[in-house]
Amino acid sequence: MNQNSNRQALRDRLFTIIFEADTPAGKIFDVSLLVAILLSVLVVMLESVKTFPDEVHHLFVVLEWVFTIFFTIEYLLRLYTVGNRLKYAASFFGIIDLVSILPTYLSFILGGAQSLMVIRILRLLRVFRIFKLTGLMDHGNHIAGALKASRYKISIFLYVVVLVTFVFGSVMYFVEGGVNESFDSIPRSVYWCIVTITTVGYGDISPVTPLGQFLASVLMIIGYSIIAVPTGIITSEIMRKPPEKITTQVCPHCLSEGHDADAVYCKFCGGHLGNH
Amino acid sequence: MNQNSNRQALRDRLFTIIFEADTPAGKIFDVSLLVAILLSVLVVMLESVKTFPDEVHHLFVVLEWVFTIFFTIEYLLRLYTVGNRLKYAASFFGIIDLVSILPTYLSFILGGAQSLMVIRILRLLRVFRIFKLTGLMDHGNHIAGALKASRYKISIFLYVVVLVTFVFGSVMYFVEGGVNESFDSIPRSVYWCIVTITTVGYGDISPVTPLGQFLASVLMIIGYSIIAVPTGIITSEIMRKPPEKITTQVCPHCLSEGHDADAVYCKFCGGHLGNH
Amino acid sequence: MNQNSNRQALRDRLFTIIFEADTPAGKIFDVSLLVAILLSVLVVMLESVKTFPDEVHHLFVVLEWVFTIFFTIEYLLRLYTVGNRLKYAASFFGIIDLVSILPTYLSFILGGAQSLMVIRILRLLRVFRIFKLTGLMDHGNHIAGALKASRYKISIFLYVVVLVTFVFGSVMYFVEGGVNESFDSIPRSVYWCIVTITTVGYGDISPVTPLGQFLASVLMIIGYSIIAVPTGIITSEIMRKPPEKITTQVCPHCLSEGHDADAVYCKFCGGHLGNH
Amino acid sequence: MNQNSNRQALRDRLFTIIFEADTPAGKIFDVSLLVAILLSVLVVMLESVKTFPDEVHHLFVVLEWVFTIFFTIEYLLRLYTVGNRLKYAASFFGIIDLVSILPTYLSFILGGAQSLMVIRILRLLRVFRIFKLTGLMDHGNHIAGALKASRYKISIFLYVVVLVTFVFGSVMYFVEGGVNESFDSIPRSVYWCIVTITTVGYGDISPVTPLGQFLASVLMIIGYSIIAVPTGIITSEIMRKPPEKITTQVCPHCLSEGHDADAVYCKFCGGHLGNH
Repeated sequence: MNQNSNRQALRDRLFTIIFEADTPAGKIFDVSLLVAILLSVLVVMLESVKTFPDEVHHLFVVLEWVFTIFFTIEYLLRLYTVGNRLKYAASFFGIIDLVSILPTYLSFILGGAQSLMVIRILRLLRVFRIFKLTGLMDHGNHIAGALKASRYKISIFLYVVVLVTFVFGSVMYFVEGGVNESFDSIPRSVYWCIVTITTVGYGDISPVTPLGQFLASVLMIIGYSIIAVPTGIITSEIMRKPPEKITTQVCPHCLSEGHDADAVYCKFCGGHLGNH
Repeated sequence: MNQNSNRQALRDRLFTIIFEADTPAGKIFDVSLLVAILLSVLVVMLESVKTFPDEVHHLFVVLEWVFTIFFTIEYLLRLYTVGNRLKYAASFFGIIDLVSILPTYLSFILGGAQSLMVIRILRLLRVFRIFKLTGLMDHGNHIAGALKASRYKISIFLYVVVLVTFVFGSVMYFVEGGVNESFDSIPRSVYWCIVTITTVGYGDISPVTPLGQFLASVLMIIGYSIIAVPTGIITSEIMRKPPEKITTQVCPHCLSEGHDADAVYCKFCGGHLGNH
Repeated sequence: MNQNSNRQALRDRLFTIIFEADTPAGKIFDVSLLVAILLSVLVVMLESVKTFPDEVHHLFVVLEWVFTIFFTIEYLLRLYTVGNRLKYAASFFGIIDLVSILPTYLSFILGGAQSLMVIRILRLLRVFRIFKLTGLMDHGNHIAGALKASRYKISIFLYVVVLVTFVFGSVMYFVEGGVNESFDSIPRSVYWCIVTITTVGYGDISPVTPLGQFLASVLMIIGYSIIAVPTGIITSEIMRKPPEKITTQVCPHCLSEGHDADAVYCKFCGGHLGNH
Repeated sequence: MNQNSNRQALRDRLFTIIFEADTPAGKIFDVSLLVAILLSVLVVMLESVKTFPDEVHHLFVVLEWVFTIFFTIEYLLRLYTVGNRLKYAASFFGIIDLVSILPTYLSFILGGAQSLMVIRILRLLRVFRIFKLTGLMDHGNHIAGALKASRYKISIFLYVVVLVTFVFGSVMYFVEGGVNESFDSIPRSVYWCIVTITTVGYGDISPVTPLGQFLASVLMIIGYSIIAVPTGIITSEIMRKPPEKITTQVCPHCLSEGHDADAVYCKFCGGHLGNH
């Protein structure tokens, strides 16, 4: 029993270190983890560059395994210390934590799967936990709230934009298809439409016939004008003011609230609101 | 007469199913129709891809005919059940419904006309009817209202932008025309101006002379600055609050105005505001 | 004298037709003029396309002369009928009107100068006069006012952006200059910077070294973020509400104005503001 | 002692001329300096153009030395006249002033370092000092204040965007890597992602597989939608009105608050508000 409670105390202490950032030890753990994630992502990225000599490449492979083993231990410790294991394993970060280590092991079976390891960069979203106490989160929540509040409007807008690109894409296929080998199918024409209406404009596909160029001009001007719509939606949500301070003034006669700041008499019972 | 009223009842029931989405049967019909439209658009798009083997291509042609016949029956049923046939046939959706089936039949005469069938994707705008009751429409109407309210301002802005591109385009033709074969006519130069001022920038045409590149830089900075204009217009319309409820209520004792809608007593003299 | 007053009456009538759009004759003249300008611009543009056969090209030259002679007569009539000739000749439209006809005559001396004739498209700005009475002008004035009010802020912003592109451009020349022949001089590198920061991105010049691509990424993200600045400035100006209605309430004792809508006593002399 | 005070008076006069723009001499000095900076930057830029003949190039080198020696004297004079030398030398403009002259001297050791001299264009930021008294600075401060106020929100937004580009970049490397030599490493794929999400779209790298083009379309639409976020943040900050002047004035008779700054009598009870 004593041993059990000792083990429980260890689990609790580990939990505080691993999952929380309020204690010095927890903060040190979190910062070290973020550095390790950054380094491991750097290694994965550099490993994909073919111009490095073989020895360097070998070093990257070794480092990759070191990081993966470190993250595996960390993942097992999280599972061990957490109260509700299933809930953690099925949470956003639980899945990201698992997916971050799997590709290295899978690389025995699937060659090239390592590149998917970069998904572990999403673990860097944990950085916000460290800043939890600094008020930085308020800014993030403000933006996230505005995006959430405007999700329906943005979705409807994008839905209509996508319909337009499909129609425009097939018209362009009809117009350019015969003479311009870049517009050789409707899906490619639709892809070109999206590249154009979003004002990205790679130029890998571009119209060559006068009519095609005229239609493209129309599409560009449409895209240029409607880029304002998501902007207007999100700006409007970001600027939505928090509800005005309610005056805490209470009528001494009928105990009603909601009086204007400059009211002299209660607007509900007509009683004098008393001295300010 | 009994037969007639039976037929009328059938027509009414069919009308409810086909044109409305309030009943379970109507909702099922609408969702099936949307799925069929999506699939048929997919078939039309994939049919245009030349890399599929002949058997697959043949399958697409067969599927295309199946969908077209299905949509033809649906169109005839709509004409049969609707009260005012002419009004439906001349409405936005009536025309879209007809234009969605015509190209397949026209393909006997005009080769390649099938690609125009993609116009049937516009039928997907019907999807909003299903969401009519969920409040999603309010969001869509809000955006549509803001776009409608800003149509004059946007039009004037685009009119001036187009005039500027014409002038700039011919100046660029004058500057680049001799040395850069991409600027071989004024219409092409204007096309390049639109590509540039909308910040799309394909790169299929780009200036090579120092003066041309300087003018292009000026044009880009103009485009970069004035993209703000439609944004400002639409943001302003989206944020325009609905007019506040004005209470025309006047205090019968002190004749004061500006009382809240829920006020019972005058906030200035304390007199009763009269019966609500 | 009778002849003189007749001439004067003719001049006045011509003035009303040519310069104003309030009478039916004036409206017809303005619309015809706009159509003629549009057609003449079309002719100039098509004339620059080299793929037309010689006969068509010859027709364009003839049409160009017809339009130019017509516009010359119109310009002389404007000079004849207007009260203050110098003021008209030096006004914006007066200059545009003259510049619109000069290039055709200059083409005897300077080959290729015709393309500058497209400047006559600026005469289409006159279209706003026809709409003067429809309230459309209010929208245009609103935008023009917002742009005018934000001209200092926009200028300061562009000034700083241009300084940044110069610094960035020379750093890129230092980084890419040796290995990438597209970055062969600082002016070209600055041109590339402007193409990038405005998110146009032709791709005619693009970095190839890892460091260059990293710096380009930084520049793009800067451009992506600060595009918000002119937008914010102009949106803010467009949304600026017209000054609130001043209450026309005058204190009957001291004749002062500027009282709040809910004031009972004059805030300057303490006298009762009287019955509302 | 007399000599010392003479020297001190000279230093003071020089300080007023060099560091301030309030006196006529100071204004002349500042304008001449700005012109010299502009000319020297022009010389550095043109020197990098290889197409000029040797004599012209030689002239540029001579001019470069003239400007550098002039700026060196100016820098030494600044050090001589300023009160706190260390503070000036470590200030933003102190460092810029030094860095602006070093590259010419360094060019003896490092070839090509001259291009870094363009950094002296940052000295043009001094132009704002001349306008200090014209109210133009208020506009600049307004924008700078809005950017400063939104720096946390923008940073969080860019942090998330960069994480997304890293994940998207490695997925694209996985998808396109085998068949498209442009996506030959994760860093390059991430670079492409940034080019795409910022809607720059060079087209030097672009996807060729259907899946890659589909993912690219998704990325473009994301970029197109979220460009609204920094815009919304900055617009919101620019429009934030400065807090209205709160008058802490209380009526001594009825203790009411909310009086205008120019009020003499209480607007609620008519009592005198006390001596101003």
